[in-house]
Amino acid sequence: MKGALGFLGLLALAVAALAQAPPPLTPQEREEAARLYFDRCAGCHGVLRKGATGPALDPKRMAERGLEYLKAVIHGGLPRGMPDWGRQGILDERQVEISARFLLEEPPEPPFLSFDEIAATWKVHVPPERRPDRPLHGRNWENFFGQVLRDLGQVAIIDGDTKELVAIVPTGFATHILRSSATGRYFMAIGRDGKASLIDLWMDPPQVVAESKPCIDARSIESSKFKGYEDRYAVVGCYWPPVMVVLDGLTLEPLKMVSTISYAKGAGELVLESRVAAIVASHFNPEWIINLKESGQTWLVDYAYLDKKGRPLPITVIDTELFLHDGGWALKRYFIVAANQVNKLIVIDTKTREFVAEVEAGVLPHPGRGSNWNHPTYGPVWATGNIGSPEVTVVGVDPENHPEYAWRVVRRIELPYTGNLFIKTHPNSPWVIVDFPMSPSPEAAASLCAIDRYRLEVARCWEVPGAREFRARMVHPEFNKGGTEVWVSAWGAKDTPTFIVVYDALTLEEKARITGDWVRTPTGKFNVYNTAYDIY
Amino acid sequence: MKGALGFLGLLALAVAALAQAPPPLTPQEREEAARLYFDRCAGCHGVLRKGATGPALDPKRMAERGLEYLKAVIHGGLPRGMPDWGRQGILDERQVEISARFLLEEPPEPPFLSFDEIAATWKVHVPPERRPDRPLHGRNWENFFGQVLRDLGQVAIIDGDTKELVAIVPTGFATHILRSSATGRYFMAIGRDGKASLIDLWMDPPQVVAESKPCIDARSIESSKFKGYEDRYAVVGCYWPPVMVVLDGLTLEPLKMVSTISYAKGAGELVLESRVAAIVASHFNPEWIINLKESGQTWLVDYAYLDKKGRPLPITVIDTELFLHDGGWALKRYFIVAANQVNKLIVIDTKTREFVAEVEAGVLPHPGRGSNWNHPTYGPVWATGNIGSPEVTVVGVDPENHPEYAWRVVRRIELPYTGNLFIKTHPNSPWVIVDFPMSPSPEAAASLCAIDRYRLEVARCWEVPGAREFRARMVHPEFNKGGTEVWVSAWGAKDTPTFIVVYDALTLEEKARITGDWVRTPTGKFNVYNTAYDIY
Repeated sequence: MKGALGFLGLLALAVAALAQAPPPLTPQEREEAARLYFDRCAGCHGVLRKGATGPALDPKRMAERGLEYLKAVIHGGLPRGMPDWGRQGILDERQVEISARFLLEEPPEPPFLSFDEIAATWKVHVPPERRPDRPLHGRNWENFFGQVLRDLGQVAIIDGDTKELVAIVPTGFATHILRSSATGRYFMAIGRDGKASLIDLWMDPPQVVAESKPCIDARSIESSKFKGYEDRYAVVGCYWPPVMVVLDGLTLEPLKMVSTISYAKGAGELVLESRVAAIVASHFNPEWIINLKESGQTWLVDYAYLDKKGRPLPITVIDTELFLHDGGWALKRYFIVAANQVNKLIVIDTKTREFVAEVEAGVLPHPGRGSNWNHPTYGPVWATGNIGSPEVTVVGVDPENHPEYAWRVVRRIELPYTGNLFIKTHPNSPWVIVDFPMSPSPEAAASLCAIDRYRLEVARCWEVPGAREFRARMVHPEFNKGGTEVWVSAWGAKDTPTFIVVYDALTLEEKARITGDWVRTPTGKFNVYNTAYDIY
Repeated sequence: MKGALGFLGLLALAVAALAQAPPPLTPQEREEAARLYFDRCAGCHGVLRKGATGPALDPKRMAERGLEYLKAVIHGGLPRGMPDWGRQGILDERQVEISARFLLEEPPEPPFLSFDEIAATWKVHVPPERRPDRPLHGRNWENFFGQVLRDLGQVAIIDGDTKELVAIVPTGFATHILRSSATGRYFMAIGRDGKASLIDLWMDPPQVVAESKPCIDARSIESSKFKGYEDRYAVVGCYWPPVMVVLDGLTLEPLKMVSTISYAKGAGELVLESRVAAIVASHFNPEWIINLKESGQTWLVDYAYLDKKGRPLPITVIDTELFLHDGGWALKRYFIVAANQVNKLIVIDTKTREFVAEVEAGVLPHPGRGSNWNHPTYGPVWATGNIGSPEVTVVGVDPENHPEYAWRVVRRIELPYTGNLFIKTHPNSPWVIVDFPMSPSPEAAASLCAIDRYRLEVARCWEVPGAREFRARMVHPEFNKGGTEVWVSAWGAKDTPTFIVVYDALTLEEKARITGDWVRTPTGKFNVYNTAYDIY
């Protein structure tokens, strides 16, 4: 073909290619674009861009789509989950442009951290022997809420009884979750930046007593909860590097690293970026249930032998499904986790330690931890929302007493919008509360729905007054300890304070609004008692 | 500094650098050098040249040494294990030259294999249902020897009673070991090229009934031996890619891949090239003991649940020492493995599943599987040779009845030479037979020694007549089933047949020589009974 074209033809092709190809990024632009990608894109598309919740972003395929297309998508989003970063004002025009050009280049591989590097990040601010042996304040700390202030890198501790701000503690950037220690006394926070913080709620005011940073990017943390091992160990699941790190539970000192690089479902390709998604602590064994997203494996990790020579750590590797994301307990025995690539729910019986079932969910199931209740016909059920389809999927979870419904979808409850992230209920509430923060519609993102747990249908939906004025997305319903209130955050931009709205959990009437200059980018919030005792 | 030098100074430096730098390899040279490196160097230095039994070969450090130095070492060897590839005639002058230049370039990373790629190598020549249910020949197959013909990629099956050649079967290149299945009926061979072969000794003649190639480079294979699981599964430990592959025991069908990429001792750097060294099957549990060389971890891998949903595979990760190599049983309970970087022996109690002791060995301990006997003073002992020091290290191994000697060196028996690779004994023999194939001295390499097990000293050494004429190295003593004979191979060059010498195990007089055109590059040999029942 070269011969047929001749020199002038080749020259014309080269000129055309040059006209299409955008200029390469300057080093400064590349650094900024890499940071933006890491903060905003890597969560769904992967640091190495192999895809997960979002599609793979291969530079060749990106080049076929072209720069203008990429800019349009980054600016305006796509249905089924791609946010409209430009339209929301989170990325400006120049940032959209360099982000698009960054996708045309080969992805850089961030460093793997050594044990020495993570050990160097370990700090104990208050050693265990200097911590109090009883709460130093008179507050009802089991009804504290830990409210993540995402873009401030802070967690606000709020008194659930009085709605007063008790403390603001510094954590990692964009805390992804808070988990309670076995006793509930400590909150463990894990930042998107991989920093783990141990917050002692008995101190006055509550404060960070220890921290370490086992990862560059992380999503999960959990403590040891089995009888005899309460709060002895903690574990952090990293997104990058792909590793699980065992820590001392009371000081967060790194003890042992286990690479999660693994083969897809034990019988596929080697997955370098095999990220740790949800982790929970078993109630039946001294075990953590650790879910690897891209390799579709669930690991049962036994922490009972770590004090022996060589720190033996039994890990039972079970091949489940791609891409495991988050999940929660049913009957405190069955751990149910979403497999996003195949739109399924994976069920692990943590008593028998077996992979017992797969259930068809909606599109991109996203349970958070899901919701549990007892239905008069179906018996105990567990439900998940789905990011990509307007549906709450309700599953029977009691093979012993309701075998005919066990691991079957007993109802697909239709929602008015897509873009759900979290649903939540409480034993004392008749409702399952549903948010829509991932919806591209401002009206949907500002709205909530309540599902009638008996009729298995949406009872009412409402737009939260004031949310749209802040361009806020209502996110993450959470009940108080008694189940008499449900709190939801108005997630806005960092430059404007928003609010946390408190509803009566029976009437759904607005009962209070928590506001203040500190209420910026509130996202997840965690009630101590409900988090410590897995009530949802 | 650049400013001070000026243009002419810089030019002079550049010319000097050019004068020192050898020309880059041509693509053909690079391909050949990569193959030579893989065949001859990677075993000790690693594919990625990070070092293990041999030192790391970093291109920058190699450049500091310079081309002439590298050529000299590759040609003439170094004390403590670096072979004299040129002097031995294994590499010619041109091959030494391109090998040296190859070390100045960045190492290429060979591909990771996917499950589909390895599954495509699986072949069943005779399915289990078409195999005989009793031996089809009248021979005493439990006294068969499998003799590796290293550079032919073959294994010779020799009748230990009659010394007749029974069959020659094709296997992978440079078979590293043979292991017996639990029943002894099958030999499993693993080639340096990663090919696993299942040889049915009941067929007439014995033949390869199944094969698969889970790796590019491998050293270990084992079957499932626990009661109720006999011959059900097999496992291959790969050098490259760094992976452990579980196979069906009767067909070698690949079932599950587990990456061995891991952190050094669970608390160091991430080791990409974390190679699988020795594997043994426990007598107390349905477990394999799997040793990772560069990451210094011993994994206890439980194969009892593989038929459940998701193929659960419990792996107990124990941090032991760098760099684990080979090892064997003491009292069929304690697995003792050499840690080459620290010149130690690591002891795993496979009954309690604990890491119980570390013992100081000589320089570069290399037990093979070691040797066991009962000493009147010290009770049960286990011994290892050492590549780098002229010493057999004898260790007490009975904490229950001889606790004062347990996990202590009870004697360091002085040898006349370094370069030992294997020692071997048998319950019915008074001797431990010692070889010296890694010695740079032709006299030593052609010699054997016999240690008096009671006096714990060398009783006699002798040069094997005829070995030096073939430039052969005497290697790998192995007893027959009854312990009345010990066989040793004369390892020569591929182009000349050599011999296997058979000694009376009591008098040490030469009893027979097995010769023939087929006896080329004989190295390891494995008696069926002694291999199946761990007698050594």
